Amino acid sequence: MNFNMKEAIEILERTPLMLEHFLPGLSNGWLQCNEGEGTWNATEVVEHLIEGEKNNWIPRLKFILQEGESKPFPAFDRFSHLNRQSDRPIEHTIKEFKTIRTENITKIKRIIENDKLLESTGFHPAFGVVKVRELLSTWVVHDLTHLAQIVRVMSKRYGRDVGPWAEYLGILK
Amino acid sequence: MNFNMKEAIEILERTPLMLEHFLPGLSNGWLQCNEGEGTWNATEVVEHLIEGEKNNWIPRLKFILQEGESKPFPAFDRFSHLNRQSDRPIEHTIKEFKTIRTENITKIKRIIENDKLLESTGFHPAFGVVKVRELLSTWVVHDLTHLAQIVRVMSKRYGRDVGPWAEYLGILK
Repeated sequence: MNFNMKEAIEILERTPLMLEHFLPGLSNGWLQCNEGEGTWNATEVVEHLIEGEKNNWIPRLKFILQEGESKPFPAFDRFSHLNRQSDRPIEHTIKEFKTIRTENITKIKRIIENDKLLESTGFHPAFGVVKVRELLSTWVVHDLTHLAQIVRVMSKRYGRDVGPWAEYLGILK
Repeated sequence: MNFNMKEAIEILERTPLMLEHFLPGLSNGWLQCNEGEGTWNATEVVEHLIEGEKNNWIPRLKFILQEGESKPFPAFDRFSHLNRQSDRPIEHTIKEFKTIRTENITKIKRIIENDKLLESTGFHPAFGVVKVRELLSTWVVHDLTHLAQIVRVMSKRYGRDVGPWAEYLGILK
Protein backbone atom coordinates (compact mmCIF):
# COMPACT_ATOMS: atom_id res chain seq x y z
CA MET A 1 0.00 0.00 0.00
CA ASN A 2 1.31 3.45 -0.88
CA PHE A 3 -1.31 5.91 0.36
CA ASN A 4 -0.35 8.65 2.73
CA MET A 5 -2.12 11.92 3.42
CA LYS A 6 0.71 14.27 2.53
CA GLU A 7 1.33 12.71 -0.87
CA ALA A 8 -2.37 12.39 -1.64
CA ILE A 9 -2.87 16.09 -0.98
CA GLU A 10 0.07 16.88 -3.30
CA ILE A 11 -1.97 15.50 -6.19
CA LEU A 12 -5.32 16.89 -5.04
CA GLU A 13 -3.96 20.42 -4.86
CA ARG A 14 -2.28 20.23 -8.27
CA THR A 15 -5.25 19.08 -10.35
CA PRO A 16 -6.89 22.53 -10.60
CA LEU A 17 -3.49 24.05 -11.41
CA MET A 18 -2.93 21.67 -14.29
CA LEU A 19 -6.37 22.38 -15.68
CA GLU A 20 -5.87 26.10 -15.24
CA HIS A 21 -2.67 26.02 -17.30
CA PHE A 22 -4.00 23.74 -19.97
CA LEU A 23 -7.61 24.46 -20.89
CA PRO A 24 -8.16 28.24 -20.89
CA GLY A 25 -7.41 29.77 -24.27
CA LEU A 26 -7.75 26.54 -26.22
CA SER A 27 -9.86 26.68 -29.37
CA ASN A 28 -13.39 25.31 -29.19
CA GLY A 29 -12.26 22.42 -31.36
CA TRP A 30 -10.22 21.14 -28.40
CA LEU A 31 -12.64 22.12 -25.65
CA GLN A 32 -15.73 20.70 -27.29
CA CYS A 33 -14.43 17.46 -28.75
CA ASN A 34 -15.45 14.18 -27.15
CA GLU A 35 -15.18 10.48 -27.93
CA GLY A 36 -18.63 10.16 -29.46
CA GLU A 37 -22.18 10.16 -28.18
CA GLY A 38 -22.53 9.82 -24.44
CA THR A 39 -18.90 10.77 -23.78
CA TRP A 40 -17.61 13.94 -22.16
CA ASN A 41 -15.67 16.91 -23.42
CA ALA A 42 -13.14 18.74 -21.24
CA THR A 43 -15.71 21.18 -19.85
CA GLU A 44 -18.03 18.35 -18.84
CA VAL A 45 -15.16 16.60 -17.09
CA VAL A 46 -14.45 19.71 -15.00
CA GLU A 47 -18.17 20.03 -14.18
CA HIS A 48 -18.08 16.39 -13.03
CA LEU A 49 -15.06 17.13 -10.82
CA ILE A 50 -17.01 20.00 -9.23
CA GLU A 51 -19.96 17.67 -8.53
CA GLY A 52 -17.57 15.30 -6.79
CA GLU A 53 -16.28 18.08 -4.57
CA LYS A 54 -19.80 19.05 -3.61
CA ASN A 55 -21.54 15.72 -3.26
CA ASN A 56 -19.08 12.88 -3.16
CA TRP A 57 -15.73 12.98 -1.37
CA ILE A 58 -16.19 15.13 1.72
CA PRO A 59 -19.86 14.19 2.30
CA ARG A 60 -18.95 10.51 2.12
CA LEU A 61 -15.96 10.98 4.39
CA LYS A 62 -18.16 12.64 7.00
CA PHE A 63 -20.85 9.98 6.55
CA ILE A 64 -18.38 7.16 7.18
CA LEU A 65 -16.93 8.83 10.26
CA GLN A 66 -20.40 9.51 11.62
CA GLU A 67 -22.30 6.35 10.72
CA GLY A 68 -19.58 3.74 10.43
CA GLU A 69 -20.93 0.55 8.87
CA SER A 70 -24.42 1.08 10.34
CA LYS A 71 -25.97 2.24 7.07
CA PRO A 72 -24.86 2.50 3.45
CA PHE A 73 -23.91 5.95 2.28
CA PRO A 74 -26.05 7.56 -0.38
CA ALA A 75 -25.14 6.71 -3.98
CA PHE A 76 -23.39 9.46 -5.94
CA ASP A 77 -24.90 10.34 -9.30
CA ARG A 78 -21.90 10.35 -11.62
CA PHE A 79 -23.87 11.96 -14.40
CA SER A 80 -25.79 14.70 -12.60
CA HIS A 81 -23.52 17.46 -13.94
CA LEU A 82 -24.80 16.68 -17.43
CA ASN A 83 -28.23 18.02 -16.48
CA ARG A 84 -26.72 21.41 -15.91
CA GLN A 85 -26.59 23.50 -19.04
CA SER A 86 -23.57 25.68 -18.62
CA ASP A 87 -22.36 28.18 -21.16
CA ARG A 88 -19.89 29.94 -18.92
CA PRO A 89 -16.28 30.24 -20.05
CA ILE A 90 -14.00 27.36 -19.04
CA GLU A 91 -11.97 29.77 -16.88
CA HIS A 92 -14.99 30.25 -14.62
CA THR A 93 -15.67 26.53 -14.37
CA ILE A 94 -12.06 25.85 -13.42
CA LYS A 95 -12.10 28.69 -10.93
CA GLU A 96 -15.14 27.20 -9.21
CA PHE A 97 -13.40 23.84 -9.10
CA LYS A 98 -10.21 25.36 -7.71
CA THR A 99 -12.08 27.25 -4.98
CA ILE A 100 -14.08 24.29 -3.74
CA ARG A 101 -11.09 21.96 -3.99
CA THR A 102 -9.01 24.33 -1.87
CA GLU A 103 -11.79 24.47 0.73
CA ASN A 104 -12.08 20.68 0.71
CA ILE A 105 -8.35 20.20 1.24
CA THR A 106 -8.60 22.46 4.27
CA LYS A 107 -11.56 20.40 5.51
CA ILE A 108 -9.85 17.07 5.01
CA LYS A 109 -6.78 18.23 6.94
CA ARG A 110 -9.05 19.24 9.80
CA ILE A 111 -11.14 16.07 9.71
CA ILE A 112 -8.28 13.57 9.52
CA GLU A 113 -6.65 14.56 12.80
CA ASN A 114 -4.66 11.36 13.06
CA ASP A 115 -3.77 8.39 10.87
CA LYS A 116 -5.95 6.05 12.89
CA LEU A 117 -9.02 7.64 11.31
CA LEU A 118 -7.85 6.35 7.92
CA GLU A 119 -8.78 2.84 9.05
CA SER A 120 -12.39 3.81 9.88
CA THR A 121 -14.93 1.82 7.91
CA GLY A 122 -18.23 2.62 6.27
CA PHE A 123 -20.71 0.78 4.10
CA HIS A 124 -20.70 1.43 0.36
CA PRO A 125 -24.08 0.72 -1.29
CA ALA A 126 -22.49 -1.49 -3.95
CA PHE A 127 -19.16 -2.66 -2.46
CA GLY A 128 -20.01 -3.18 1.19
CA VAL A 129 -17.36 -2.35 3.78
CA VAL A 130 -14.82 0.26 2.69
CA LYS A 131 -12.16 2.24 4.53
CA VAL A 132 -11.51 5.96 4.71
CA ARG A 133 -8.05 5.39 3.24
CA GLU A 134 -9.66 3.67 0.25
CA LEU A 135 -12.05 6.57 -0.25
CA LEU A 136 -9.21 9.09 -0.14
CA SER A 137 -7.01 7.01 -2.47
CA THR A 138 -9.93 6.85 -4.87
CA TRP A 139 -10.30 10.63 -4.77
CA VAL A 140 -6.68 10.93 -5.97
CA VAL A 141 -6.96 8.29 -8.67
CA HIS A 142 -10.27 9.80 -9.78
CA ASP A 143 -8.46 13.10 -10.44
CA LEU A 144 -5.74 11.32 -12.41
CA THR A 145 -8.32 9.33 -14.39
CA HIS A 146 -10.06 12.46 -15.52
CA LEU A 147 -6.83 14.29 -16.38
CA ALA A 148 -5.89 11.30 -18.53
CA GLN A 149 -9.37 11.33 -20.05
CA ILE A 150 -9.10 14.99 -21.06
CA VAL A 151 -5.84 14.47 -22.93
CA ARG A 152 -6.99 11.16 -24.43
CA VAL A 153 -10.14 12.76 -25.82
CA MET A 154 -8.06 15.51 -27.42
CA SER A 155 -5.52 13.08 -28.85
CA LYS A 156 -8.28 11.17 -30.63
CA ARG A 157 -9.29 14.36 -32.40
CA TYR A 158 -6.11 13.89 -34.47
CA GLY A 159 -6.59 10.13 -34.75
CA ARG A 160 -6.73 10.21 -38.54
CA ASP A 161 -4.48 13.24 -38.98
CA VAL A 162 -1.40 11.36 -37.76
CA GLY A 163 -1.58 8.98 -40.71
CA PRO A 164 0.60 5.87 -40.35
CA TRP A 165 2.10 7.08 -37.04
CA ALA A 166 -1.12 5.90 -35.37
CA GLU A 167 0.68 2.57 -35.08
CA TYR A 168 3.13 4.04 -32.54
CA LEU A 169 0.52 5.96 -30.57
CA GLY A 170 -1.16 3.61 -28.13
CA ILE A 171 -3.42 6.35 -26.81
CA LEU A 172 -5.39 6.30 -30.07
CA LYS A 173 -6.40 2.66 -29.67
CA MET B 1 -9.17 15.69 -40.78
CA ASN B 2 -8.88 18.22 -37.97
CA PHE B 3 -5.26 19.43 -38.00
CA ASN B 4 -4.51 23.08 -38.30
CA MET B 5 -1.34 24.92 -37.33
CA LYS B 6 -2.88 27.37 -34.90
CA GLU B 7 -4.66 24.71 -32.85
CA ALA B 8 -1.68 22.36 -32.94
CA ILE B 9 0.55 25.08 -31.51
CA GLU B 10 -2.01 25.70 -28.74
CA ILE B 11 -1.27 22.21 -27.42
CA LEU B 12 2.47 22.27 -28.10
CA GLU B 13 2.92 25.46 -26.10
CA ARG B 14 0.85 24.20 -23.16
CA THR B 15 2.62 20.90 -22.54
CA PRO B 16 5.59 22.42 -20.67
CA LEU B 17 3.20 24.60 -18.66
CA MET B 18 1.18 21.60 -17.52
CA LEU B 19 4.31 19.76 -16.51
CA GLU B 20 5.64 22.81 -14.74
CA HIS B 21 2.50 23.10 -12.62
CA PHE B 22 2.22 19.43 -11.88
CA LEU B 23 5.57 17.77 -11.25
CA PRO B 24 7.78 20.16 -9.25
CA GLY B 25 7.34 19.72 -5.51
CA LEU B 26 5.85 16.23 -5.76
CA SER B 27 7.31 13.62 -3.42
CA ASN B 28 9.79 11.15 -4.83
CA GLY B 29 7.17 8.46 -4.49
CA TRP B 30 5.23 10.14 -7.30
CA LEU B 31 8.21 11.22 -9.39
CA GLN B 32 10.01 7.91 -9.29
CA CYS B 33 7.18 5.44 -9.67
CA ASN B 34 6.81 3.57 -12.94
CA GLU B 35 4.75 0.69 -14.32
CA GLY B 36 7.40 -1.96 -13.75
CA GLU B 37 10.69 -2.89 -15.33
CA GLY B 38 11.42 -1.22 -18.65
CA THR B 39 8.77 1.48 -18.11
CA TRP B 40 9.33 5.17 -17.50
CA ASN B 41 8.80 7.42 -14.53
CA ALA B 42 7.74 11.06 -14.94
CA THR B 43 11.32 12.35 -15.12
CA GLU B 44 12.20 9.88 -17.86
CA VAL B 45 9.16 10.93 -19.84
CA VAL B 46 10.26 14.58 -19.72
CA GLU B 47 13.80 13.55 -20.78
CA HIS B 48 12.22 11.70 -23.71
CA LEU B 49 10.25 14.81 -24.67
CA ILE B 50 13.52 16.80 -24.68
CA GLU B 51 15.13 14.21 -26.97
CA GLY B 52 12.22 14.60 -29.37
CA GLU B 53 12.69 18.37 -29.46
CA LYS B 54 16.36 17.95 -30.24
CA ASN B 55 16.42 15.02 -32.63
CA ASN B 56 12.97 14.23 -33.91
CA TRP B 57 10.34 16.81 -34.81
CA ILE B 58 12.21 19.80 -36.24
CA PRO B 59 15.07 17.78 -37.78
CA ARG B 60 12.55 15.52 -39.54
CA LEU B 61 10.49 18.47 -40.68
CA LYS B 62 13.57 20.06 -42.24
CA PHE B 63 14.63 16.74 -43.74
CA ILE B 64 11.27 16.25 -45.43
CA LEU B 65 11.22 19.75 -46.83
CA GLN B 66 14.80 19.40 -48.10
CA GLU B 67 14.88 15.82 -49.37
CA GLY B 68 11.25 15.08 -50.19
CA GLU B 69 10.76 11.39 -50.86
CA SER B 70 14.27 10.98 -52.28
CA LYS B 71 15.66 9.27 -49.19
CA PRO B 72 14.26 7.97 -45.91
CA PHE B 73 14.82 10.16 -42.90
CA PRO B 74 17.04 8.82 -40.13
CA ALA B 75 15.31 6.68 -37.52
CA PHE B 76 14.76 8.33 -34.15
CA ASP B 77 15.97 6.40 -31.14
CA ARG B 78 13.01 6.51 -28.79
CA PHE B 79 15.06 5.18 -25.90
CA SER B 80 18.26 7.22 -26.16
CA HIS B 81 17.35 9.44 -23.20
CA LEU B 82 17.57 6.38 -20.95
CA ASN B 83 21.34 6.27 -21.51
CA ARG B 84 21.65 9.65 -19.89
CA GLN B 85 22.03 9.44 -16.13
CA SER B 86 20.44 12.57 -14.84
CA ASP B 87 20.17 13.47 -11.19
CA ARG B 88 19.14 17.06 -11.68
CA PRO B 89 15.94 18.30 -10.04
CA ILE B 90 12.77 17.90 -12.12
CA GLU B 91 12.42 21.71 -12.26
CA HIS B 92 15.63 21.89 -14.31
CA THR B 93 14.56 19.13 -16.66
CA ILE B 94 11.22 20.83 -17.29
CA LYS B 95 12.93 24.17 -17.77
CA GLU B 96 15.17 22.69 -20.46
CA PHE B 97 12.12 21.20 -22.15
CA LYS B 98 10.24 24.49 -21.98
CA THR B 99 13.14 26.45 -23.44
CA ILE B 100 13.73 24.15 -26.39
CA ARG B 101 10.00 23.75 -27.03
CA THR B 102 9.58 27.53 -27.15
CA GLU B 103 12.46 27.78 -29.63
CA ASN B 104 10.98 25.00 -31.74
CA ILE B 105 7.58 26.65 -31.89
CA THR B 106 9.29 29.78 -33.17
CA LYS B 107 11.11 27.68 -35.77
CA ILE B 108 8.02 25.88 -36.93
CA LYS B 109 6.14 29.14 -37.41
CA ARG B 110 9.03 30.39 -39.55
CA ILE B 111 9.40 27.17 -41.53
CA ILE B 112 5.71 26.62 -42.32
CA GLU B 113 5.23 29.86 -44.23
CA ASN B 114 2.06 28.67 -45.91
CA ASP B 115 -0.40 25.81 -45.62
CA LYS B 116 0.75 24.30 -48.92
CA LEU B 117 3.92 23.13 -47.18
CA LEU B 118 1.78 20.91 -44.93
CA GLU B 119 1.17 18.66 -47.93
CA SER B 120 4.89 18.14 -48.62
CA THR B 121 5.92 14.50 -48.49
CA GLY B 122 8.93 12.64 -47.18
CA PHE B 123 9.94 9.03 -46.77
CA HIS B 124 9.67 7.43 -43.35
CA PRO B 125 12.05 4.47 -42.88
CA ALA B 126 9.25 2.19 -41.69
CA PHE B 127 6.04 3.73 -43.05
CA GLY B 128 7.09 4.98 -46.48
CA VAL B 129 5.53 8.20 -47.75
CA VAL B 130 4.34 10.59 -45.02
CA LYS B 131 3.17 14.19 -45.06
CA VAL B 132 4.34 17.19 -43.06
CA ARG B 133 0.81 17.56 -41.65
CA GLU B 134 0.99 13.98 -40.38
CA LEU B 135 4.35 14.63 -38.72
CA LEU B 136 3.03 17.75 -37.00
CA SER B 137 -0.20 16.02 -35.93
CA THR B 138 1.94 13.25 -34.47
CA TRP B 139 3.99 15.77 -32.53
CA VAL B 140 0.79 16.99 -30.84
CA VAL B 141 -0.58 13.52 -30.11
CA HIS B 142 2.85 12.45 -28.86
CA ASP B 143 2.68 15.22 -26.22
CA LEU B 144 -0.81 14.14 -25.19
CA THR B 145 0.23 10.48 -25.04
CA HIS B 146 3.02 11.25 -22.64
CA LEU B 147 0.91 13.52 -20.46
CA ALA B 148 -1.61 10.68 -20.20
CA GLN B 149 1.24 8.27 -19.45
CA ILE B 150 2.52 10.39 -16.55
CA VAL B 151 -0.86 10.50 -14.83
CA ARG B 152 -1.59 6.83 -15.60
CA VAL B 153 1.70 5.73 -14.02
CA MET B 154 0.90 7.72 -10.90
CA SER B 155 -2.66 6.41 -10.68
CA LYS B 156 -1.36 2.83 -10.69
CA ARG B 157 0.71 3.63 -7.63
CA TYR B 158 -2.60 3.61 -5.73
CA GLY B 159 -3.95 0.63 -7.64
CA ARG B 160 -4.34 -1.48 -4.48
CA ASP B 161 -4.98 1.42 -2.13
CA VAL B 162 -8.36 2.20 -3.71
CA GLY B 163 -9.74 -1.17 -2.63
CA PRO B 164 -13.04 -2.15 -4.30
CA TRP B 165 -13.30 1.20 -6.13
CA ALA B 166 -10.76 -0.17 -8.63
CA GLU B 167 -13.83 -1.51 -10.44
CA TYR B 168 -14.93 2.04 -11.35
CA LEU B 169 -11.46 3.28 -12.31
CA GLY B 170 -10.71 2.20 -15.86
CA ILE B 171 -7.27 3.81 -15.76
CA LEU B 172 -6.06 1.08 -13.40
CA LYS B 173 -6.77 -1.71 -15.89
